[in-house]
Amino acid sequence: MCYEAMMLLLCSLLIFFGSLSGVLVTGDVVNVHLVPHTHDDVGWLKTVDEYYYGANNSIQHAAVRYILDSVVDELSKNKDRTFIYVEIAFFVRWWSEQTDDTKQKVHELVSNGQLEFINGGWCMNDEASTHYNGIIDQMSIGLRFISNTFGVRPLVGWQIDPFGHSSFQATAFSLLGFDSMMFARIDYDDKAKRLSSNNLQTIWKSSPSLGSIADIFTEELYQHYSPPHDFCFDIKCSDPPIMDDDSLYDYNVKQRVTEFIGYALDQAKIYKTNNIMMTMGDDFQYENAREWFENLDKLIKYANMNGSINVMYSTPSKYVKYVNSNKDVTWSTKSDDFFPYASAPHSFWTGYFTSRPALKGYERLCNAHLQACKQLEAIHNGLGDQGPSSIELQRAMGVAQHHDAVSGTEKQHVADDYAKRLHVGEVECRSVIATVLNDLAAKGSNVPKMDLSFCEYLNISVCPVTEGGDFSMVVYNSLGRPYTGMVHIPIMKESILVTDPDDIAVPVQVVPISNVTKSMSLVVTGNASAEYVAVFEVTDVPPLGYAIYTGKTSNGDYLEYTQQSSVINNVKEDVTISNKYYEVEFDGESGHIKSITNTVSGISSSVSQQFFWYNASTGNNIDTQNSNAYVFRPNSSTTFPVDSGDNYAEITSVTGELLSEVRQVFSPWVSQVVRLYKNIPAIELEYTVGPIPINDGLGKEIISHFTTDLKTDSTFYTDSNGRDMQKRVRNYRPTWTYNNTEPIAGNYYPVNSRIFIRDEEKNVQFTILNDRSQGGASITDGSIELMVHRRLVVGDGAVGALNETGMSGDGLIIRGKHLLLLDNVDNSAHTQRMMAEELLMIPELSFTFNDGIKLEDYNLKYSGLSAPLPDNVHLLTLEYLDQSTILLRLDHQFESNDPGKWSTTIDVKLRDLFVAFTIKDVTELALGGNVALSDIKKLQWQTSTDETVPGPFNPPPVAGPDFIVSLSPMMIRTFNITVEPKIN
Amino acid sequence: MCYEAMMLLLCSLLIFFGSLSGVLVTGDVVNVHLVPHTHDDVGWLKTVDEYYYGANNSIQHAAVRYILDSVVDELSKNKDRTFIYVEIAFFVRWWSEQTDDTKQKVHELVSNGQLEFINGGWCMNDEASTHYNGIIDQMSIGLRFISNTFGVRPLVGWQIDPFGHSSFQATAFSLLGFDSMMFARIDYDDKAKRLSSNNLQTIWKSSPSLGSIADIFTEELYQHYSPPHDFCFDIKCSDPPIMDDDSLYDYNVKQRVTEFIGYALDQAKIYKTNNIMMTMGDDFQYENAREWFENLDKLIKYANMNGSINVMYSTPSKYVKYVNSNKDVTWSTKSDDFFPYASAPHSFWTGYFTSRPALKGYERLCNAHLQACKQLEAIHNGLGDQGPSSIELQRAMGVAQHHDAVSGTEKQHVADDYAKRLHVGEVECRSVIATVLNDLAAKGSNVPKMDLSFCEYLNISVCPVTEGGDFSMVVYNSLGRPYTGMVHIPIMKESILVTDPDDIAVPVQVVPISNVTKSMSLVVTGNASAEYVAVFEVTDVPPLGYAIYTGKTSNGDYLEYTQQSSVINNVKEDVTISNKYYEVEFDGESGHIKSITNTVSGISSSVSQQFFWYNASTGNNIDTQNSNAYVFRPNSSTTFPVDSGDNYAEITSVTGELLSEVRQVFSPWVSQVVRLYKNIPAIELEYTVGPIPINDGLGKEIISHFTTDLKTDSTFYTDSNGRDMQKRVRNYRPTWTYNNTEPIAGNYYPVNSRIFIRDEEKNVQFTILNDRSQGGASITDGSIELMVHRRLVVGDGAVGALNETGMSGDGLIIRGKHLLLLDNVDNSAHTQRMMAEELLMIPELSFTFNDGIKLEDYNLKYSGLSAPLPDNVHLLTLEYLDQSTILLRLDHQFESNDPGKWSTTIDVKLRDLFVAFTIKDVTELALGGNVALSDIKKLQWQTSTDETVPGPFNPPPVAGPDFIVSLSPMMIRTFNITVEPKIN
Repeated sequence: MCYEAMMLLLCSLLIFFGSLSGVLVTGDVVNVHLVPHTHDDVGWLKTVDEYYYGANNSIQHAAVRYILDSVVDELSKNKDRTFIYVEIAFFVRWWSEQTDDTKQKVHELVSNGQLEFINGGWCMNDEASTHYNGIIDQMSIGLRFISNTFGVRPLVGWQIDPFGHSSFQATAFSLLGFDSMMFARIDYDDKAKRLSSNNLQTIWKSSPSLGSIADIFTEELYQHYSPPHDFCFDIKCSDPPIMDDDSLYDYNVKQRVTEFIGYALDQAKIYKTNNIMMTMGDDFQYENAREWFENLDKLIKYANMNGSINVMYSTPSKYVKYVNSNKDVTWSTKSDDFFPYASAPHSFWTGYFTSRPALKGYERLCNAHLQACKQLEAIHNGLGDQGPSSIELQRAMGVAQHHDAVSGTEKQHVADDYAKRLHVGEVECRSVIATVLNDLAAKGSNVPKMDLSFCEYLNISVCPVTEGGDFSMVVYNSLGRPYTGMVHIPIMKESILVTDPDDIAVPVQVVPISNVTKSMSLVVTGNASAEYVAVFEVTDVPPLGYAIYTGKTSNGDYLEYTQQSSVINNVKEDVTISNKYYEVEFDGESGHIKSITNTVSGISSSVSQQFFWYNASTGNNIDTQNSNAYVFRPNSSTTFPVDSGDNYAEITSVTGELLSEVRQVFSPWVSQVVRLYKNIPAIELEYTVGPIPINDGLGKEIISHFTTDLKTDSTFYTDSNGRDMQKRVRNYRPTWTYNNTEPIAGNYYPVNSRIFIRDEEKNVQFTILNDRSQGGASITDGSIELMVHRRLVVGDGAVGALNETGMSGDGLIIRGKHLLLLDNVDNSAHTQRMMAEELLMIPELSFTFNDGIKLEDYNLKYSGLSAPLPDNVHLLTLEYLDQSTILLRLDHQFESNDPGKWSTTIDVKLRDLFVAFTIKDVTELALGGNVALSDIKKLQWQTSTDETVPGPFNPPPVAGPDFIVSLSPMMIRTFNITVEPKIN
Repeated sequence: MCYEAMMLLLCSLLIFFGSLSGVLVTGDVVNVHLVPHTHDDVGWLKTVDEYYYGANNSIQHAAVRYILDSVVDELSKNKDRTFIYVEIAFFVRWWSEQTDDTKQKVHELVSNGQLEFINGGWCMNDEASTHYNGIIDQMSIGLRFISNTFGVRPLVGWQIDPFGHSSFQATAFSLLGFDSMMFARIDYDDKAKRLSSNNLQTIWKSSPSLGSIADIFTEELYQHYSPPHDFCFDIKCSDPPIMDDDSLYDYNVKQRVTEFIGYALDQAKIYKTNNIMMTMGDDFQYENAREWFENLDKLIKYANMNGSINVMYSTPSKYVKYVNSNKDVTWSTKSDDFFPYASAPHSFWTGYFTSRPALKGYERLCNAHLQACKQLEAIHNGLGDQGPSSIELQRAMGVAQHHDAVSGTEKQHVADDYAKRLHVGEVECRSVIATVLNDLAAKGSNVPKMDLSFCEYLNISVCPVTEGGDFSMVVYNSLGRPYTGMVHIPIMKESILVTDPDDIAVPVQVVPISNVTKSMSLVVTGNASAEYVAVFEVTDVPPLGYAIYTGKTSNGDYLEYTQQSSVINNVKEDVTISNKYYEVEFDGESGHIKSITNTVSGISSSVSQQFFWYNASTGNNIDTQNSNAYVFRPNSSTTFPVDSGDNYAEITSVTGELLSEVRQVFSPWVSQVVRLYKNIPAIELEYTVGPIPINDGLGKEIISHFTTDLKTDSTFYTDSNGRDMQKRVRNYRPTWTYNNTEPIAGNYYPVNSRIFIRDEEKNVQFTILNDRSQGGASITDGSIELMVHRRLVVGDGAVGALNETGMSGDGLIIRGKHLLLLDNVDNSAHTQRMMAEELLMIPELSFTFNDGIKLEDYNLKYSGLSAPLPDNVHLLTLEYLDQSTILLRLDHQFESNDPGKWSTTIDVKLRDLFVAFTIKDVTELALGGNVALSDIKKLQWQTSTDETVPGPFNPPPVAGPDFIVSLSPMMIRTFNITVEPKIN
């Protein structure tokens, strides 16, 4: 047998050698592009460093260092071999450990195209619970490492594992200058339809506001991101190797080649050109790259002898060029996104939109810290090589964007590691912030430094400085416009005098701290000594600037400067709180919100808000799928109210001039404060949820549910990573017939910054903004629900049950905010953007005891901008690169269909904008800051509607002397600005 | 923590760098010899080629090609790194696939000592079911490959996995010129005692006959052959890597170094010098050698900074030199062997002594084929590069010696693969044999070739040639002395004329074929047409020569030339068969042997022989250990008779002049023929056992049990690999207090060729020779039992249940032979050696139809020797190396305590010994044929009894012109003889 097979093969070899004098690259023969790759999660079942080192291998065998080691060795052995690498968080760790010789070898492999960086961000980010600020930053630090180190840039977006795909991600890839993007996970019905209609490749028109410059060629992979069945040659696999030594007993070349060609020809039937790509790799594969490459070498050699296909080592970018070279083919288009992702009829991956809400909240908070940190670093022109820097936090945030990080789909110890990394970065950034603020504030070099501390438990009313005596508070505003907002400062007694930077006393309302908050403080900090918070407004804090407020609590009676709140406990009658924008009415019986009136617009709606839970499925006789860290599957569509009937919420009203709030205690584990501030045009709901009880053996998924009287026609809107709004229609998908197998989970969408419903007829919009990503839906007309917390008792095989036990061990307690808006559509368009921007860029508060400090030695106010930016311009990035270069990103934060007042194209004159430096030159870059925009030449594609895309990205040049930047709706522009620091 | 740890380490680094200016090699500091190694089974759960290629990885992940690939790469990266390689069967496969560049690299690694071959046989052979001929051959082909390829030789025996250790193995290592041997598996009580008495190293005095030249330094490894707990850095392991990058989160250098030093110092307490060896590897490890070496590099670096130990890459031979350099230490001695091996009180590894009896039998048969094949190849001066050769069978036999091959401890498909390889080798050897026999026989070059076929089913009376017409039979005798023996030729009718080479009719007895045999033939060959066997004697077939006998069955009535047997079915009375040596009496009621009388010596004994079984344990409440392929554990000491009471054996007597036999049918699955041949001084028992019934859910272990009236004082004797006899005492171990936890299994020993008991007072010895290795014991005085077959229903986790289903699927049927001797001790000493030699070197029978052949064209007789060798000299090896070189091994097959007539030192004059060639020169080699004896300089050791060992191996030189070889008892001498073929 063995000998016979060998003879047959030799015959076919002889037959085909005649016709194959070289490698075929075009023509009718199918080109099979083998793409050796590894998918290296930047943390998941193990931490990023455990994955890098190969530690904790009993959990999962994975060691990225050896992947890179062995791939580099193997590529060097055969110039045909190729490999792609994706996750720069790992590559940087590895690179830093290499010898010069190895680095030189890698340089050669990169420049000859054998080793290609794909995607090239710090991680392969999640798309459902990330914010566009985080996505851009993480792509940017990866891409800039690549360009700085190798002078090259990736051309392909490679989101092969994220669990659904956002429009902004596609837009980002377009703006990064990528030619295409690829992924694996799309809805099973969508996949089936695309498979049957030869439509796995499409042009994604990802942003109506940006138009065709955001169009991108998008390919859905054939079979996940794995190799063909039986052709995995990794050490993790057990597929038959290519055994081509006929002196041994298991010679199998003919059989393996036949199988492979069959597979390739099947795949080729599905794709539109004579090119197909095979992903030859999988999670953490290539730890011993030798085994893959030796077998692929043989596979290529023997399969090509057959002549019916042309197999080659390739990369996604090379493949895309081949695909693109076929000019006869036109491509379909798509303009919605790829959410939610369902892998099967009862497996909607919509649980992770909310999983680990504390981590999601902390990640968002750290984004604010990072932006402030980078701004101050830039204003200071860096802090020198020895000084603290934002790099740790940049990298920690880069890691946190990973699709098993902020997504909440990692193991607990990995979630803890992400938080730890963020905290380490945050602490270093506090040094940056404190140093720069001191330098900006000090009127002379001999002025003592303010010992600034950052009260990280302010949200549970703990701050040792303000509780300990007289203090100063520095409010740093990272917005490009002045900031006005309310601060809550814990104090021991009800007496305080707060003065503003002009030494004028500001109105202060003293509010008693709730028992709910006190018990949380006790759990988290072991201390709950403060009895009150002083609430006051910080007004018009300058853009990119600070204002210093002073508080006196000791050595005097400052009661006259405060307003004490009026507190009514255990309210049993209807009660209404109001400010100059809203009236919120509460039902005395239930304690729930009953109605909301916008007193400015004169719009009113009944609004009922309540917390419910879904019981999590542990699988049933229809499908074994349970609700887990990824998948949301309630065991029925029934929502269970946290409070009801005899057990309704107990409410307390707290009113005063600056703040009126109703505190609702729904149950021992759910409470909420509904707040109106004097000058804030939104209703703040601060909820506290947990420990979620599971003693009944049932996992629970907690929602905050709002019912209004709006007629919404099954429609609601959610944001895409905090940017373009996406229209959602209940029980419907724009491009295929939706099968409503999971009536709740199948209608959930990611809500990264806001969700709203509209009554088009009445011109009323009800908007909810959040402070972290959550899953949201409108299950019935007029309603919105947001999932705020979840705790499960069973899980998937890998991650286990999502059961966060928290510091007490009883179950994690989370506290978050929703801001409600009820207004007409036009007003809402503006307010939602402004409020979302403020929620994102919350001011940095730092505190110092006033002992030994003379306020007159300090500048109590500073503005980083010579003039505020207009409301439609967001200062997205101000980042120190080197002593003469700063990275600047500005974005237009309105969409083209927003009211004309906000959605017009707007010019920003950069020349004198920044107080700290003079701009000498401006170079426009692609979004990643890694390549000059002028260097990008994109592949062009013909759509089936006869359009050639993408459109040219040719914004008006930013020339001196004024360096005017023009921004159209949703536009983001990125610049290297050459600066000269101004002498103070 | 992380930073603190780092600072501490930097401190200790600074402290110790002062005192450590180089690597310490002596002194009081413990030298830790790290020995990177892989243990690569030459077949076990997968076949040897599956292991080589990494096929069938779902059974066990293992791919030797990548081990060698990656080790070579990694050794090249750091000149300090070392590795040992053991199994040449794998290395040869790999070597043949390498480029010249790689080969050159390997040459460098070998010559600079980084890559060292250890053991160096084709495999790491089993020691319990192998024969010394097979052990020597397999060591020889491996060692000669090494010396031919690299010009080096191993110095250390490395039997780290075999399940018990034989004296001959130690002798072999001594004679191979090794300085030491090492292993892991010894009895748990022995180990405990050696651990507690610092006695893991000892001088093994392995052969009383050879004396101190066979002494060898023997080391028991500390903890199996694995690395220290938590220090396995293989891809198969999950131990924490050495994480030394303090910019990452899991820096653990200090902790790992502390653990390692603790382990090393603990180990150092046990060994006698300041050197310890750590086996850094395990089964099929180093598939990605990078991971091991990178971590070992770090471990060495950081552990040496501590200063309390000196860690280095090493090899066993380097380690032994260090140990040997300590001249103050004296060493204990040991002179028994290491059988049986018990890993725990109820885990005696004595089942594999018998496991897979068919494979064990076939392996032994193939050894005979191989010796004949090699002899004829040598006589023919090779068959040219294009001709068939013995290499395939040499290698297949080399593979079959592996400790999971002939041991029977492999999976079924692997056992099948071993058999297939042997068969492929056997078939090629048949070509060799047929070619050479034809060339020797043909009187001229135009004489037509005899179309010789080899009737492989002769033992079940199937031979198409003899059943098909007139034929000639070539009997090749591979002994160094003339052979006289009986052949059984299946024929269709009771009429045949057999003539000898002198054309003289020889007496023939026609014997009807039993139903038992016919039904076996039907199962195995699908044919059972022959009704009779013709039994006749081949007399004085010349040494290393042949005789051609001719049989006529067609065209005539040859009844007159035959004697028909007298057959009595269903005998119910006592019956006795006899020849000129023995009378064997059978009990009419039971059908069993009742007594045996040696009519020459006048010795008689009641002898009862019967088949019993033990029920196999599936584990019990004392211990979960079950009987499996390795371990024998009966579920009680009760033996169950195969026949008894109302259901005793049915017997048939068949008598005649040449052959008298009693056929016993004990049950449908056990039968036996007890035979006496006219001129053979032994009683032949041919048993047929199987299918073993397991329909009662119980595994069964079948024994042939003999009870005599000898007074044996708990003592019996078994051979060591067919060579030195070992004294065994029931319920006793010579060097520790035996704990009789398993009264049956714990008293089993390997019986490779014979077992005997003695009545010292009466000077009577009862001997049983077997034709394959078996487990044997003397559980009660005067008795012997041999386990002949076993079939189990449960197994161990890896191999599974030993349940051979055979060709019928119902259960494997095996047929084997025991030869019984009852005689005085002196006579027995001679007969047992002669009979064992004949059983080992059974003649090669080949057959040809006589159509178209004129007998006068052929030499009908040939002797390869000018004179027979004396009885005490065994021609162990005659092997063609190249056109002028032949490898010759002669051994003295008596022990020093055998009767003086046989045990005297004897001279053999080589000069004119061989008919086919003239000897021009003789070079004495070590046993492996890989190095001149004169080049061996062994390390010397001081025993605690003040002896310096080993003694010098300085045999009298073998000088021309006569080339006289002197052989003392048990001596084996190996020579390259330079030859000049004689012109025919």
